[in-house]
Amino acid sequence: MSVIGKAALLGGGVIGGGWAARLLLNGIDVVLFDPDPQAARKMGEVMTNARRAFADLIPEGRPSEGRLTITADLAEAVSGATFIQESAPERLELKQNLFAEVDALAPEDALICSSTSGLLPTELQAKMKRPERLLVAHPFNPVYLLPLVELVGGEKTAPEAIERAKTLYVSLGMKPLHVRREIEAFIADRLMEALWREALWLVKDGIASAEEIDDAIRYGCGLRWAQMGTFQVFNIAGGEAGMRHFMAQFGPALKWPWTKLMDVPEMTEELIERIAEQTDAQAGGRSFRELERIRDENLVAIMQALEPKDWGAGAVLKQYRAQLRGDKT
Amino acid sequence: MSVIGKAALLGGGVIGGGWAARLLLNGIDVVLFDPDPQAARKMGEVMTNARRAFADLIPEGRPSEGRLTITADLAEAVSGATFIQESAPERLELKQNLFAEVDALAPEDALICSSTSGLLPTELQAKMKRPERLLVAHPFNPVYLLPLVELVGGEKTAPEAIERAKTLYVSLGMKPLHVRREIEAFIADRLMEALWREALWLVKDGIASAEEIDDAIRYGCGLRWAQMGTFQVFNIAGGEAGMRHFMAQFGPALKWPWTKLMDVPEMTEELIERIAEQTDAQAGGRSFRELERIRDENLVAIMQALEPKDWGAGAVLKQYRAQLRGDKT
Repeated sequence: MSVIGKAALLGGGVIGGGWAARLLLNGIDVVLFDPDPQAARKMGEVMTNARRAFADLIPEGRPSEGRLTITADLAEAVSGATFIQESAPERLELKQNLFAEVDALAPEDALICSSTSGLLPTELQAKMKRPERLLVAHPFNPVYLLPLVELVGGEKTAPEAIERAKTLYVSLGMKPLHVRREIEAFIADRLMEALWREALWLVKDGIASAEEIDDAIRYGCGLRWAQMGTFQVFNIAGGEAGMRHFMAQFGPALKWPWTKLMDVPEMTEELIERIAEQTDAQAGGRSFRELERIRDENLVAIMQALEPKDWGAGAVLKQYRAQLRGDKT
Repeated sequence: MSVIGKAALLGGGVIGGGWAARLLLNGIDVVLFDPDPQAARKMGEVMTNARRAFADLIPEGRPSEGRLTITADLAEAVSGATFIQESAPERLELKQNLFAEVDALAPEDALICSSTSGLLPTELQAKMKRPERLLVAHPFNPVYLLPLVELVGGEKTAPEAIERAKTLYVSLGMKPLHVRREIEAFIADRLMEALWREALWLVKDGIASAEEIDDAIRYGCGLRWAQMGTFQVFNIAGGEAGMRHFMAQFGPALKWPWTKLMDVPEMTEELIERIAEQTDAQAGGRSFRELERIRDENLVAIMQALEPKDWGAGAVLKQYRAQLRGDKT
């Protein structure tokens, strides 16, 4: 029996659609609140890719798919829900008002999570009568495959809500990471943005193209990041003397004027156009859905490759598969 | 027949040792110049791990190993060499003087490459009589597994030297990336440093531990970076409207005060100690060599997983395997 009864999702964009797919593929019924008349078509496309990826990931013993309902009526969506995941546009006031409404409409004991990639839970819960059950649960695209979900509580979030969320996301095959201090953009997005900003400078200054930068990542450091992150990789790079040696040797380099850390590149039309042209060229005429499929196949292959090693995302997958087996017996 | 006759390596540290392993495992004889009395012991340990990883990567049809000679005599090392790779400490004057000596001692047509992770080739070639044959060829740890090598020419580097280096590194199963404009730290290290600097801030400010930061990478974005880099991933994240939409939506976030971009954290003893303690805890009592083995096994598994997809590092591996087969028939 799942820890989730009825799931209500607010918003069916790239992230909300990904949540819907993960829940449905885990056999959970989903009511999706989305006023967009295109919502059903978009969800259908997401599910086509997600179903294929999930079947590759878990060839045997998958739960039977949950039932999807799409509605433009918020009260209908959250009525009777035990778990609510919001993935609306990133505007504070919009989200605050949405949570105030949901707070009044949903059952008292429903857990309410926001997919925001940067807004603070303390601000998100400001207009709620029962703010203790709200937290941020920030996932990563594609939500139906990547294990990470960052959990961030606000000043009024109850510790029990965090614990409940941990259990819930683990039951969906995910890896919850509790971000212990409330900070804008949390952990992963700050790291991604630091990398992205430097990458934008390299394109703007004509040092490298989008493709060259992607190659510099995926043929080198990206393969290390995927399984060990950055600290443990540098720990090993320090050789026998480990991290202390590494920091002594490479720490000072941070003071050299290597990276464009003092400013943010101006997002001119010209820069946006240059990058869009370069990424189009890189995509080589493949459609968005085709690229998505390639990405998903690669993610599945990497996670499965790490599974026998019981390492990183492979360890999460191994545990998830055991859970699914347990659910059947 | 290899494009490399005799290879001379200057310096047998983590990088130089990794080069030695890649060359030896490709059947090439190596003379290693290293005055360190511990050089033979260290090389023995590197080869133990590298041999295992390479046997996992290429279970069948490996070339027979080349012969390793270690010498403290520079003239002996470079005499008759067709290819010279320098991996000495990162001090400009030391490298300049080394290259001036090598320039005089080595055969006129020897290709000379530097493993520097940041110094400019124009400066490295300053004291050479035949600077046209020097370039930077910057590899990534572990050199015997990761495909990427950044090639950077200086003002006096001949275009033919770059072309010759490309052929040479491809023959070793690598992916040369020509960095078209000379810039400190090239491409990959700038990206890694941007990420690393942000990570250091997060630890310094007590937001997250080294392990939590590594988890935020390896369970999420790291899995995407390993196969697509950053631009193509964001292109997909933009949904049907692609990169233009993504930039319009997320570009402005770069102007928010999310990341600590204005300064560099002070590398106090306390910060170094905190990070070293956290990475030690994360390592869970595993030795450096043990961690290295785990990392290598994971890298092999990821590259092999991508090979049937003919994608990224998997495509390089596929081509390399075909080359090795071709060499045998």
